[in-house]
Amino acid sequence: MIDSTVKIGDNCKIESNVEIGAYSVIEENVVIGKGSVIGNHVIVKADTVIGKYTNIQDFVILGQTPASNKKTARKPPKNLSPLFIGNRATICSHCVIYRGTMLLNGVFIGNLASIREKVFVGDDSIIGRNAIVENDTTIGSRVTIQTNAYVTANMIIEDDVFIGPCFSSSNDKYIGNDQEELQGPTLLKGAKIGNNASLLPGITIGEKAVIGAGAVVTKDVPALKTVVGNPARDIRR
Amino acid sequence: MIDSTVKIGDNCKIESNVEIGAYSVIEENVVIGKGSVIGNHVIVKADTVIGKYTNIQDFVILGQTPASNKKTARKPPKNLSPLFIGNRATICSHCVIYRGTMLLNGVFIGNLASIREKVFVGDDSIIGRNAIVENDTTIGSRVTIQTNAYVTANMIIEDDVFIGPCFSSSNDKYIGNDQEELQGPTLLKGAKIGNNASLLPGITIGEKAVIGAGAVVTKDVPALKTVVGNPARDIRR
Amino acid sequence: MIDSTVKIGDNCKIESNVEIGAYSVIEENVVIGKGSVIGNHVIVKADTVIGKYTNIQDFVILGQTPASNKKTARKPPKNLSPLFIGNRATICSHCVIYRGTMLLNGVFIGNLASIREKVFVGDDSIIGRNAIVENDTTIGSRVTIQTNAYVTANMIIEDDVFIGPCFSSSNDKYIGNDQEELQGPTLLKGAKIGNNASLLPGITIGEKAVIGAGAVVTKDVPALKTVVGNPARDIRR
Repeated sequence: MIDSTVKIGDNCKIESNVEIGAYSVIEENVVIGKGSVIGNHVIVKADTVIGKYTNIQDFVILGQTPASNKKTARKPPKNLSPLFIGNRATICSHCVIYRGTMLLNGVFIGNLASIREKVFVGDDSIIGRNAIVENDTTIGSRVTIQTNAYVTANMIIEDDVFIGPCFSSSNDKYIGNDQEELQGPTLLKGAKIGNNASLLPGITIGEKAVIGAGAVVTKDVPALKTVVGNPARDIRR
Repeated sequence: MIDSTVKIGDNCKIESNVEIGAYSVIEENVVIGKGSVIGNHVIVKADTVIGKYTNIQDFVILGQTPASNKKTARKPPKNLSPLFIGNRATICSHCVIYRGTMLLNGVFIGNLASIREKVFVGDDSIIGRNAIVENDTTIGSRVTIQTNAYVTANMIIEDDVFIGPCFSSSNDKYIGNDQEELQGPTLLKGAKIGNNASLLPGITIGEKAVIGAGAVVTKDVPALKTVVGNPARDIRR
Repeated sequence: MIDSTVKIGDNCKIESNVEIGAYSVIEENVVIGKGSVIGNHVIVKADTVIGKYTNIQDFVILGQTPASNKKTARKPPKNLSPLFIGNRATICSHCVIYRGTMLLNGVFIGNLASIREKVFVGDDSIIGRNAIVENDTTIGSRVTIQTNAYVTANMIIEDDVFIGPCFSSSNDKYIGNDQEELQGPTLLKGAKIGNNASLLPGITIGEKAVIGAGAVVTKDVPALKTVVGNPARDIRR
């Protein structure tokens, strides 16, 4: 069930019952676990490891190496580990997942999403369609990041967090200052973020805190509190 | 004018004067009406019906079946009807349109957009580049949904509505609560929504009402009223 | 190093040391400069000019011709010049760049971005992943437009401007009015815009002014001022 038009590089290990659709390109040293299904026009870059019973849809790129130009503040790291995708994961069509990232078992990535290098995503988490996760961000288990959300670099998102659609976050206090240290927001266990909320750099959203839709959150929010507005304030005041 | 590299499944009905570009994959039972033009690297999944003189650009997927993981609150429906696209429609490059959806005559979908299952789009409506329409949403005729807009599930958008770029909407009052019934906003005939406005679940925007750019709308807006701000208030107060 | 599956149209000029990956389609009259690397499944439309040592990643479309439907207010222009891309530029995967546009040397375009016709981008500027630039917009040199930003039509962005992620802009004062003249915001040299800020039509942001995250900017901002909130006000008041 590997289409005759598929190109497969040297040293690949394709286990039993793997299907690969038309016009896909598998580079060298790739591992594809038992029973996984790879769509049409999929590009798997060198060294990528795909687990068992995982589903990769059409037009996906796995294991992309970061690029940059003269103006990029921080040059992309070299010697990244291969992209690792666990078992029973689903990567929907038109996604780009970078090298140096790890997606554990059962992860679901929606269409047209992109995930940069050095990202960790725990078991069974969902990253929605068109969502973006920047580099060096850690995402726990059973997290939901909805469609069109923007997760900046150097964020920490603990288990069971829920992020609504069109969420935005940033990690540079002095907008575009190349010298400062970058730190995205930290979302503690079970926090819930409404749609189109904006989180400023370095703040912490407490356990099970709730951020209202459209809120612009400029400082820490304690556990269990709900904040709304621009700037965001305790809903009871 | 069907490229020799195109793969065509069993039982397809390709009418006269159809063009299909290089490396496209047409699965079984597909109908393509007279004079339609299909680009390069297009994937048409099983059973899809495409009308006459319709234009499908490169890297488009038509008729995608929904997927899910363990954490998905609502499992995708089975036995969806085939995707139906009317006459003289245009689907720009890199779009994904799901099975179970219906796009009527003259519809225009911009690049990199995605439209989920069980969506209805009326005649001559426009859905902009990078826009997203979730499942079970009904969109009237001559509606404009601009670039990057996010249309949640279970929305009703009547005829002649205009939605600006980066619009956001939600359908779960208690953010991420799997038990509640989901209901997106309802936009009545001729309502206009400014760019980057956020609409909360279940609210109704009246006929020809206007929502200002960046407004966060938390409750119903009467016909012909204009609201702005966070939370949105009548512009005259 | 041109894969045997690449289709190349008449009258192309491919210079020395060019590499082209599998299943790419190069239409007629295309020029590709010395040492450029074209990925897999890339589509280069007719007449496109690509400079030297430029890198075009997988699933990119270069030189797309604009389309429209019955409801499109402004019909796309005809007789557009070919797309021109300078030397040492990088176009990441899944981008669509339209005909009639000019990207100068060293420009970097992130994954899944789209750039419409009649756009000019100066040397070494960055346009982030999933960002969108509409038609007739001029962008200076060393500009950074971050991920997911939405740059409307008829904007002017001067040198060294920095635009944060999820930025939104608009160009029609009377939302969706087909008769009015469109004018996007003007961002003067060195202005900085925070994440998820919304700019209204026709306003000017002064040199080195700063717009806070989530601000909704409804009028001009003088040079060096900082504004925040909805509507945005001087941070010191």
